[in-house]
Amino acid sequence: MQNFELTILGCSSATPTSKRNPTAQLLNIAERFFLIDCGEATQIQLRKYKLKFQRINHIFISHLHGDHYLGLMGLISSMHLLGRTVELHLYCPAELQEIIEIQFKHSQSYIKFPIVYHPHKYIDNDLIFEDERVEVRTIVLNHRIPCCGFIFKEKPLLANISKETIHLFQLTVEEIIAIKAGSDLTKRSGEVIKNAELVTNIKEPRSYAYCSDTCYDERIAALVKGFNLLYHEATFLQEMEARAKETFHTTALQAGMIAKKANVKQLMIGHYSARYKDLQPLLNEAKSVFDNTILAIEGQSIVVSY
Amino acid sequence: MQNFELTILGCSSATPTSKRNPTAQLLNIAERFFLIDCGEATQIQLRKYKLKFQRINHIFISHLHGDHYLGLMGLISSMHLLGRTVELHLYCPAELQEIIEIQFKHSQSYIKFPIVYHPHKYIDNDLIFEDERVEVRTIVLNHRIPCCGFIFKEKPLLANISKETIHLFQLTVEEIIAIKAGSDLTKRSGEVIKNAELVTNIKEPRSYAYCSDTCYDERIAALVKGFNLLYHEATFLQEMEARAKETFHTTALQAGMIAKKANVKQLMIGHYSARYKDLQPLLNEAKSVFDNTILAIEGQSIVVSY
Repeated sequence: MQNFELTILGCSSATPTSKRNPTAQLLNIAERFFLIDCGEATQIQLRKYKLKFQRINHIFISHLHGDHYLGLMGLISSMHLLGRTVELHLYCPAELQEIIEIQFKHSQSYIKFPIVYHPHKYIDNDLIFEDERVEVRTIVLNHRIPCCGFIFKEKPLLANISKETIHLFQLTVEEIIAIKAGSDLTKRSGEVIKNAELVTNIKEPRSYAYCSDTCYDERIAALVKGFNLLYHEATFLQEMEARAKETFHTTALQAGMIAKKANVKQLMIGHYSARYKDLQPLLNEAKSVFDNTILAIEGQSIVVSY
Repeated sequence: MQNFELTILGCSSATPTSKRNPTAQLLNIAERFFLIDCGEATQIQLRKYKLKFQRINHIFISHLHGDHYLGLMGLISSMHLLGRTVELHLYCPAELQEIIEIQFKHSQSYIKFPIVYHPHKYIDNDLIFEDERVEVRTIVLNHRIPCCGFIFKEKPLLANISKETIHLFQLTVEEIIAIKAGSDLTKRSGEVIKNAELVTNIKEPRSYAYCSDTCYDERIAALVKGFNLLYHEATFLQEMEARAKETFHTTALQAGMIAKKANVKQLMIGHYSARYKDLQPLLNEAKSVFDNTILAIEGQSIVVSY
């Protein structure tokens, strides 16, 4: 089974606390390391949890509130100082390029690796990254300033064919390749054996949706229908619904409602307001609507399962 | 005795380690809280050590390498989000204003307190802050990009007059005020009593010099002559002198030499390269030239004594 593992580096909302850092997550799909948002001190968190940051080639920034990107300059500088030459791809609001370049200009730094900017188009399901194993798309969130969430999906894996099947039907290499890609088998006799009878372990590709920051918006549920894991911000408890609405954030109850409507397998909440020292009430509230909910906790990893 | 206390928030050079943050120091002179440089995660360090950051009204940024200023945006944002209205003074390279304002613009943030910029003139002993207790001046350091150090000095304190002296000479309130300010006493008989015979505890005002980042430059010794405490960067061991020169940094031995030439009371070294897990060799090297040397260690405070 290929890796599909999410590590939480920061789970705080705008003002960090002495216990919680601003938002950042590291997602490993099949040894592609995707960094999702990069709040202040993300490079320090990566070091703390012994995650090698030179393996990160793709960074996704949702929006330009400081708690989602202020760690980027420091991370890029350290990548440079430690000798990186491999290109780095940034999927981000277009304005981030100006913010980065003005700082390099004034520090008279000449970064030795290329930075490739992929500005957000703010379109749902816009394909922004693809290789043979993974695809990444944006979804538009509903926040005070332009903001995108990200959805990560495995590509369908090639099916397996057992040794017994190969022996039974005396399959050629060409036939094996065709069957793995989904073809039926036509025997010399003309008899057709359906693909499903020839292959094993066809698994639904796994999926992860990252939705922060956003107010309660049922559109999101439609866009992440049936996902294996949904991360949804839950900045406040429901008793602060008015404040959530005013600041374009979501309550834990509302995050649970989105998960339920979307019928996802699992919900992870995060982006907690600094006022909540104890996170249990936020968890309880989301669980009251959607039972399979977990908390984003710094340093913890979760394997996304089939 | 009024406070004169320095707390180390970060002591790493450009690339932080899992144990050491980039440069930041909090200096308390008579309850004025001066923040000196502000590397990434300074706001997190202030929280960790339970130092109230809303008391900071003056921030001094030496230069625009990221490890000396990247924590500023996050700190200012948190000051804003937590309701600050009091003005904040930034003593910094002129270009920092553009870096800050472009980020506020793109995050559509409207900070509720005034930020007053005091751009460096890059002049030795330029008076940049003064009130009835303290004065702060810049000194020009010798780094790859324009860089200033800062010197902090107490104003002379008014002298004390003992109760016995007041009783003995039957001093009036006017005479007491005049004597505290330095006058001699002329008795009715015409006899003059010298000020020094009337007052106690005339202490030399204390002084602190912050010198980071800089290559070895003997000019600095002349500018900090006799200071109570000198913080001088010591990025490398002497065996890396060539690397120090090339990157406009100083070795621990050279920092000791500056302290010796300046005849300061105490030397603190810091800004250690990430390559040194154990700091003892750096300390030993500086001490081999200047014995009263200490290490900058995060979370530790030192009271500057007379």
